[in-house]
Amino acid sequence: MPRLLRRRSKKVGLPPGSLVYTGEKVFAPAKITVIDYDDKKYAEREAASFDECPVFSPEPGVTWINVSGIHQVANLEKLGECFHLHPLVLEDILNIDQRPKVEDYDDYLYIVLKTIRPGERLDEITVEQISLILGRNYVLSFQEGNTDIFAPIRDRLVAEKGRIRKSGPDYLAYTLIDLIVDHYFVVLETCAEQIETVEDGVVSHPTPTTLKDVHRFKTDMILLRKSLWPLREVIARMERRESPLIEDATSVYFKDVYDHTIVAIETVETYRDILSGMLDIYLSSVSNRLNEVMKVLTIIATIFMPLTFIVGLYGMNFKYMPELEWHYGYYMVLGFMAVVALIMLAVFKKQKWL
Amino acid sequence: MPRLLRRRSKKVGLPPGSLVYTGEKVFAPAKITVIDYDDKKYAEREAASFDECPVFSPEPGVTWINVSGIHQVANLEKLGECFHLHPLVLEDILNIDQRPKVEDYDDYLYIVLKTIRPGERLDEITVEQISLILGRNYVLSFQEGNTDIFAPIRDRLVAEKGRIRKSGPDYLAYTLIDLIVDHYFVVLETCAEQIETVEDGVVSHPTPTTLKDVHRFKTDMILLRKSLWPLREVIARMERRESPLIEDATSVYFKDVYDHTIVAIETVETYRDILSGMLDIYLSSVSNRLNEVMKVLTIIATIFMPLTFIVGLYGMNFKYMPELEWHYGYYMVLGFMAVVALIMLAVFKKQKWL
Amino acid sequence: MPRLLRRRSKKVGLPPGSLVYTGEKVFAPAKITVIDYDDKKYAEREAASFDECPVFSPEPGVTWINVSGIHQVANLEKLGECFHLHPLVLEDILNIDQRPKVEDYDDYLYIVLKTIRPGERLDEITVEQISLILGRNYVLSFQEGNTDIFAPIRDRLVAEKGRIRKSGPDYLAYTLIDLIVDHYFVVLETCAEQIETVEDGVVSHPTPTTLKDVHRFKTDMILLRKSLWPLREVIARMERRESPLIEDATSVYFKDVYDHTIVAIETVETYRDILSGMLDIYLSSVSNRLNEVMKVLTIIATIFMPLTFIVGLYGMNFKYMPELEWHYGYYMVLGFMAVVALIMLAVFKKQKWL
Amino acid sequence: MPRLLRRRSKKVGLPPGSLVYTGEKVFAPAKITVIDYDDKKYAEREAASFDECPVFSPEPGVTWINVSGIHQVANLEKLGECFHLHPLVLEDILNIDQRPKVEDYDDYLYIVLKTIRPGERLDEITVEQISLILGRNYVLSFQEGNTDIFAPIRDRLVAEKGRIRKSGPDYLAYTLIDLIVDHYFVVLETCAEQIETVEDGVVSHPTPTTLKDVHRFKTDMILLRKSLWPLREVIARMERRESPLIEDATSVYFKDVYDHTIVAIETVETYRDILSGMLDIYLSSVSNRLNEVMKVLTIIATIFMPLTFIVGLYGMNFKYMPELEWHYGYYMVLGFMAVVALIMLAVFKKQKWL
Amino acid sequence: MPRLLRRRSKKVGLPPGSLVYTGEKVFAPAKITVIDYDDKKYAEREAASFDECPVFSPEPGVTWINVSGIHQVANLEKLGECFHLHPLVLEDILNIDQRPKVEDYDDYLYIVLKTIRPGERLDEITVEQISLILGRNYVLSFQEGNTDIFAPIRDRLVAEKGRIRKSGPDYLAYTLIDLIVDHYFVVLETCAEQIETVEDGVVSHPTPTTLKDVHRFKTDMILLRKSLWPLREVIARMERRESPLIEDATSVYFKDVYDHTIVAIETVETYRDILSGMLDIYLSSVSNRLNEVMKVLTIIATIFMPLTFIVGLYGMNFKYMPELEWHYGYYMVLGFMAVVALIMLAVFKKQKWL
Repeated sequence: MPRLLRRRSKKVGLPPGSLVYTGEKVFAPAKITVIDYDDKKYAEREAASFDECPVFSPEPGVTWINVSGIHQVANLEKLGECFHLHPLVLEDILNIDQRPKVEDYDDYLYIVLKTIRPGERLDEITVEQISLILGRNYVLSFQEGNTDIFAPIRDRLVAEKGRIRKSGPDYLAYTLIDLIVDHYFVVLETCAEQIETVEDGVVSHPTPTTLKDVHRFKTDMILLRKSLWPLREVIARMERRESPLIEDATSVYFKDVYDHTIVAIETVETYRDILSGMLDIYLSSVSNRLNEVMKVLTIIATIFMPLTFIVGLYGMNFKYMPELEWHYGYYMVLGFMAVVALIMLAVFKKQKWL
Repeated sequence: MPRLLRRRSKKVGLPPGSLVYTGEKVFAPAKITVIDYDDKKYAEREAASFDECPVFSPEPGVTWINVSGIHQVANLEKLGECFHLHPLVLEDILNIDQRPKVEDYDDYLYIVLKTIRPGERLDEITVEQISLILGRNYVLSFQEGNTDIFAPIRDRLVAEKGRIRKSGPDYLAYTLIDLIVDHYFVVLETCAEQIETVEDGVVSHPTPTTLKDVHRFKTDMILLRKSLWPLREVIARMERRESPLIEDATSVYFKDVYDHTIVAIETVETYRDILSGMLDIYLSSVSNRLNEVMKVLTIIATIFMPLTFIVGLYGMNFKYMPELEWHYGYYMVLGFMAVVALIMLAVFKKQKWL
Repeated sequence: MPRLLRRRSKKVGLPPGSLVYTGEKVFAPAKITVIDYDDKKYAEREAASFDECPVFSPEPGVTWINVSGIHQVANLEKLGECFHLHPLVLEDILNIDQRPKVEDYDDYLYIVLKTIRPGERLDEITVEQISLILGRNYVLSFQEGNTDIFAPIRDRLVAEKGRIRKSGPDYLAYTLIDLIVDHYFVVLETCAEQIETVEDGVVSHPTPTTLKDVHRFKTDMILLRKSLWPLREVIARMERRESPLIEDATSVYFKDVYDHTIVAIETVETYRDILSGMLDIYLSSVSNRLNEVMKVLTIIATIFMPLTFIVGLYGMNFKYMPELEWHYGYYMVLGFMAVVALIMLAVFKKQKWL
Repeated sequence: MPRLLRRRSKKVGLPPGSLVYTGEKVFAPAKITVIDYDDKKYAEREAASFDECPVFSPEPGVTWINVSGIHQVANLEKLGECFHLHPLVLEDILNIDQRPKVEDYDDYLYIVLKTIRPGERLDEITVEQISLILGRNYVLSFQEGNTDIFAPIRDRLVAEKGRIRKSGPDYLAYTLIDLIVDHYFVVLETCAEQIETVEDGVVSHPTPTTLKDVHRFKTDMILLRKSLWPLREVIARMERRESPLIEDATSVYFKDVYDHTIVAIETVETYRDILSGMLDIYLSSVSNRLNEVMKVLTIIATIFMPLTFIVGLYGMNFKYMPELEWHYGYYMVLGFMAVVALIMLAVFKKQKWL
Repeated sequence: MPRLLRRRSKKVGLPPGSLVYTGEKVFAPAKITVIDYDDKKYAEREAASFDECPVFSPEPGVTWINVSGIHQVANLEKLGECFHLHPLVLEDILNIDQRPKVEDYDDYLYIVLKTIRPGERLDEITVEQISLILGRNYVLSFQEGNTDIFAPIRDRLVAEKGRIRKSGPDYLAYTLIDLIVDHYFVVLETCAEQIETVEDGVVSHPTPTTLKDVHRFKTDMILLRKSLWPLREVIARMERRESPLIEDATSVYFKDVYDHTIVAIETVETYRDILSGMLDIYLSSVSNRLNEVMKVLTIIATIFMPLTFIVGLYGMNFKYMPELEWHYGYYMVLGFMAVVALIMLAVFKKQKWL
């Protein structure tokens, strides 16, 4: 089972705004990528820490700072100072057990999302928390680990594909969220294929492994659902343009991602229903098979017990047992037993047990 | 299991508005039918591609362009230019994994629907995506395959039946949607008959095939439900006449289709309830039968085990066993065993096992 | 299982407003009863068809036309003309698979209801569609068959009981609807009694018939629920007096029927819960009994298998078996076996199997 | 099972306002208690019927008339005339199958409630309908039977405890309702204790009686829930002070009862959840025990069947069976069988069956 | 099972506002801690009872009075007088079976919460009721027992950590509530670890203990849920700042606790889903194992019953049984039996029973 709850208890009793990283300790250094772009220019540079705050030119370019690895608290504090972030925002970025949400701090929007991807082992899903800060001319993004999940967006920026270079930071935020939602479909498709395989097995030849699989997928769907519902809510609020940071033209794109999220949610709910049904089918299949096994046992016992009784009967050592003396006694008994067995078989045949 | 999720992952990381057909590749050429009609005239012609945009005369006629087969992206792009469609609309027409929805682009309404029909094999349901664009004096309809599902409407146009020739494009859109909803009833009726057959079997003689059928119908109902709920929403929005493209007189007809959709939804929900109940009944039936089998086994064992013990007893080779010498010993044992067997039977009779 | 879905497919592709009767074909002629009444007068006459439209005198009397048997489409068309009914209303009256609803056509209200009554066989419920048209000074009622369900109302009109003769057509509509709701209670009471009988059996002596009964009642409750919920909605709208056709004084009576409907719905929901519980109890009871059966089998086998082994042992034909020569060998073995059997019984006693 | 539905069918076809008592016929005479009180005075007298209407002095005192036993319709009619009650109110007082509700008739509020108390047998709950009429300076209360449930209130009035003597009829109504809600807790506590006892048994030693108990408590909870939800609604409407008959100062007390009702509802819902869980546990326990029984059977059969076969083998009467002639043949067979039995036991041990 | 319902029945029939402690009687004296603090000063003193009301200086300091042990009713009455508390508030503080709620009495807010912590035994959860009174310049807190749960807050006050010393009583109330919510996570984490352990066992080696554990955790989750939902409601109302006692700057902190509560609720709901699934898996596992056991029994019986019959056959004492005289008869029978056994084994192999 993937971790449902991470070490929140580390923080019991601490005053709010205390910067504590609640994830697993990571010792690799964080990677900071700063990208400046507008219609004409594109500049990208990397940094390991923040020494001074980035200077924003008055031109209408967009600055995108991506931080991979949020365990170095000092970096975050510096960044917080530069962009005048509220202490609770910094605390939430570090607390990787947040629920997806969007918060409006007038000057910027703070967005928390969960991205998922297939884990290292086939049957695992990795959940990672992504925090976005959308300001008037910048976007800050924070990832837990250093998987380069935003590479396609950077490629698109370099390649000048689509309207991304011509648009503002809200459109950049949209493309990041769109990518995150797309990742849900990748995982859902992988699950879908495996569930279909399991489903074929559940009626025809149920095994304990089938059971384990069904249980695992059910738990997966519960987890997906848990991050998709609040994600829907976040995107709905973006689309409704409650903040002036989202432009009119971008809203229709958020509507589009919103529709995707709904499709994802409905798919998850559908799979949950189907998996619940599969468990019932499994139980019925197992009962069916038990029935078959018991019929075999009953048939065998019903045929051989009377026969064994009869041969036992003539194995008795009484002095006066006339049948034993008959010349054809043995053959008569053999014949009688054949008749008994055939009658039994006929009865079973009639009751459709055979 | 019908595909629940189609290849959405093809598009991960692509910029929005990229035209990618997400269905199975089809190599038959698309078929484009252009119909011009009004109260007096009716003209129909076919085309394989768009070379030039259709010219609209200022008269109050209606143009209906039906595209069967949407895998030829070039055609769509041309059409999009002619009718000034938003890139996201074109993208959605091609992405056949849309959720039924209606979107208002001021100049036109974009409507996505799912039509279902019985598949080739008896136990399959084919789902196809239909996109409609309702403009001021035109209707565009897009189908995935080239099944001629709109033939009855064309016939009615030719035959001048009903008020269709006298009405505008909104009424044409209504007839198309009405037809799509009617198809749900065709499928529901087929299911209904089969479910009734299965239901009769579930109590009287449950077999593993029954189980498979119940499971299949449950999945079918889940799928029907998944496309009916958003369909309801779409039609409700049409009826509420949120767009000026829907005339007052047409609204009452949309109310009518809306009622049909509700009936369809309730029927699906009712069947789901009944099918869930059937699974419980199935499980109980199987348990019942197991009980019967076990009773047979227990009766047989309970009668013959003591008897076999008794005959074994007198099969012992002890030198001094007085009974063996008795003249009527054999008959006394036979009698005793008959008494034992009768007592056993009486006990079973009393416990209602027989 | 009662029909859940009637032949709607007859109408696929037909233009809206096509008058097609979707019920089973009936060849008995329809019966039309026209009743004129006010505070002072009461006149009743029967007709087989409409030749001319009824003339309404300017006095404040009420005209009630009841049509039993709606399969004669020509009658309906004539009536529609007389009362200026919308084609969709006529279509809906004929389509007996409507969902209970109320529609406001300004000049009149169109109300669809379902009445139920116990069917011919004990375990059947007959559902019939009743359509009401409530105009300024008339009420039209349409029934599928020709059971005289409205007889008590006619009797009350004749007998001048209650305030019915002094009130307008809205009060008449109320009494008709009240009667229909009362019929639900008749059916519910019949079910209630039978369910209580079944419930007693489910714990004490579960049989496959019990199972069949539980399943049947569950389906009945699903069906009752399906017609009660929209009925509630219809009456709620009548009570809220959305149309000026309902007078102030009548509204409090509709509130009363509304309360009855809620009681009916809650009773149905409660029975559904109880029946679901009964199925669980049934399954547990069957498992319990299986357990009992298996205990009997195990006790018998555990006692007699070792004994049979022992007697088999001394039935062996080895030349040198000293025990066989002992004078009290036989009695010693008998005693030993008695001890074994008693120990077994003691163990079972201790484990509470006996 | 307590009656869920009482003889409503008595009234099918009767005009509204017909006074028909729907409870079981009772022949004891009704008891009418009239209490007049204010800050200074307290007067109580009993009556068997109403001969004349009570005269209200202009002073600000409160009159409380309690009617125990509502089967004497004549009394009610007289009372109705005195207090100008609507015919539907009188009808509802007599119809003891009402849903808890509050109705505002401007001059008075009509309140229907259900009181419960433990029945005569331990496992029964008695439900009784209480009707209250709250007027400007009077409260009328109607009970089905003549259990003196309001005695504590009368005692408090006599003893001048609390603010009751200083307050108006709305406060009196509050104390009556508060007492009724308190009775729910008495029943809930009794249930709670019994459920805890049953719960202990369900895992450790499940018996069919346990099953019966769980089923009974589930039905009880369904019934409690059915009367608590509308009760909540009634009290919420009293608290919101929709009628001027409820004074500002009393509203905070109704808020208090409202909170109690919520606690009662949540307790009932919690018990429902726990009882549902107990049924699952029961079923699993029974399956577990079946497993244990079957293991015993299998172990016995697996050990003794091969042994019985071996001793049968050497019981054969073939002329040439060399082993039979061996001097130590018997002991060798005994040794061999001991080895077989020990191997079997070792296998079972390894598979954790022992 | 933890107590779901405490002795509420003690109070049936008592007038509202009666001060009755509904918890278990405790004889340890209550402990009262009075803390005065502001930006500069911090004073703490203990008291066993209230002799005189605390005097509030006009300076903007905060007074926090914590009462551990509420069974001494006299103390409470005195306190109530000092702070002009409503009698219903005092009654509610003593009634430890309240639902979490917040009530606005203009001058102060009355807040009831439930705190949980792991009980003394590993598998127990202790629920305690905490009442808070938030006034203009004071906070009163009441605990049932005398566990010092608020120690971290006192330490933070002493250490001047965070903004607590600079803020008003609303911020103090926030820190108390935040601490209470944090405790839920401590319990949830303990449960989470144990549930994961149980889950591993449920598929691989299900035992009755597993069952007991699953049942216990399900009950725990039901209880947690029962206190978390109203807690959410309480905090939501605090955050919405319905009372002027909550300052603007504090609202964002309440939003933060609100988010935590949502995470806790979702975690509880997720565990409930997973535990329900585990029960299904358990039942299926047990059925699977029964199947395995029965297969072993059937295999043993199917192989040895025919063989035992054969050896019994040649143990018969008929005079004329030619086979018995054959020289190799014994070996032929041995061979024949070996063939029979091998055929049986092959059949089982083919049916995948082995």
